[in-house]
Amino acid sequence: MNLLLFESNEIKSDGTVSLQDRRSAHIIKILGCKPGDTIRAGVINGPVGTGEILSIRGKGKNAEVVMRFSATDGQPEHPAVDLIIGLVRPIMLKRVLAQVTSLGVGRIFLINGNRVEKSFFNASLLKDENYRPYLVQGLEQAKYTRLPQVAIHKCFKPFIEDFIPTITGDYQRMLVAHPGGSADLKQRLESNIKGRTLFAVGPEGGWVDYEVEKFIEHSFVPVSLGRRVLRTDTAVVALLAQLMLLQGE
Amino acid sequence: MNLLLFESNEIKSDGTVSLQDRRSAHIIKILGCKPGDTIRAGVINGPVGTGEILSIRGKGKNAEVVMRFSATDGQPEHPAVDLIIGLVRPIMLKRVLAQVTSLGVGRIFLINGNRVEKSFFNASLLKDENYRPYLVQGLEQAKYTRLPQVAIHKCFKPFIEDFIPTITGDYQRMLVAHPGGSADLKQRLESNIKGRTLFAVGPEGGWVDYEVEKFIEHSFVPVSLGRRVLRTDTAVVALLAQLMLLQGE
Repeated sequence: MNLLLFESNEIKSDGTVSLQDRRSAHIIKILGCKPGDTIRAGVINGPVGTGEILSIRGKGKNAEVVMRFSATDGQPEHPAVDLIIGLVRPIMLKRVLAQVTSLGVGRIFLINGNRVEKSFFNASLLKDENYRPYLVQGLEQAKYTRLPQVAIHKCFKPFIEDFIPTITGDYQRMLVAHPGGSADLKQRLESNIKGRTLFAVGPEGGWVDYEVEKFIEHSFVPVSLGRRVLRTDTAVVALLAQLMLLQGE
Repeated sequence: MNLLLFESNEIKSDGTVSLQDRRSAHIIKILGCKPGDTIRAGVINGPVGTGEILSIRGKGKNAEVVMRFSATDGQPEHPAVDLIIGLVRPIMLKRVLAQVTSLGVGRIFLINGNRVEKSFFNASLLKDENYRPYLVQGLEQAKYTRLPQVAIHKCFKPFIEDFIPTITGDYQRMLVAHPGGSADLKQRLESNIKGRTLFAVGPEGGWVDYEVEKFIEHSFVPVSLGRRVLRTDTAVVALLAQLMLLQGE
């Protein structure tokens, strides 16, 4: 936890925040804070600033930390990249969500595909926003406060044919990762590096030809990550890191 | 498993290979092969080629597949990048080893550091090359046969002061990942993209200042991955992917 995060509705009318969970334990045990100390803190989807520790009561799991938050930075900027991911195993998804959040993404579309195990859509991780802690974990790691928006699309065809056209205008470029792609990201972006990007990365086993064709039909351009066939979790991080480098973020 | 791998000493004098483990199960259950079919196969640290299925005997876990291997490609090329990693938790290390192997690395030095949990060096994963299956997993994923060499260094100071000078001549550049680094990889490489690279990525919690200074003292140059603080597993994949892009691999 490199940044202590809390929700805006946790701020009381007197400007204090009361913590009594893994966050208070972190402040006491890991950071070793005492009343009077200040730490870096941030509001989820809001500003970063400092938290002054006002009091520490009790011990162990039930210890309560009260702090006063003062914003120092403005609103966090909006990441310039959104992701489409063919739904992966819950255990891999938890990690992928934390990792891509730490790298900075705006929206994450978890979609179906021929090689997606259908039962993954019933995973408890996808219900009631149970994946949210993994997004927060990514923010805490990267010292960033903008939470990605996650959307789940259970049917591939309506997603690509009906939904994608409604958001195409948001993007400077839409790319589909495919080991057969003839150009890498540098060649695809050339000197035109500005603007928003929508990346589509396949599920474990990759996209089938029909899906790649459908992406291309809807203005996606195939992009390759070299000769190697990478697993979804590796490919997603690799592509975001490459884009980050090219855009000089 | 995108490529079926076996050891060179598994090839019998008549040129056949007998499989009776997860590989035979894969050939029968996932690939649905029958005698006469051919599959892509490769020798670890040797060539890629085709395997002709000669016979399938028995069922379930004990099924035996006999195939004849014919090499079609030459020896695999040597990856142009080596890695130093501050030792991470075994569960993360398994994944990191598979991921970096799939991206292609030559040597992996697992080293100590101030923020390395010392007990990690006693993990059974590090004994008797128990990590080897994770390297093979990475090769199977990426359709590649060159196994990275793994070395374990339990003391930071002798590693950087005594060992590093003996291998410095192997590299065109040595880089240490550090969130405080003033330049990203593109700026560090400029137009000089050829030659071998040695990357040092910190443990969870990162390198301490003393360690970064020691790296710099021994000809490493700090490189930044942007404003965000990334976890070791994310940083390693991100840096390798960025290097791959710049070197046009």
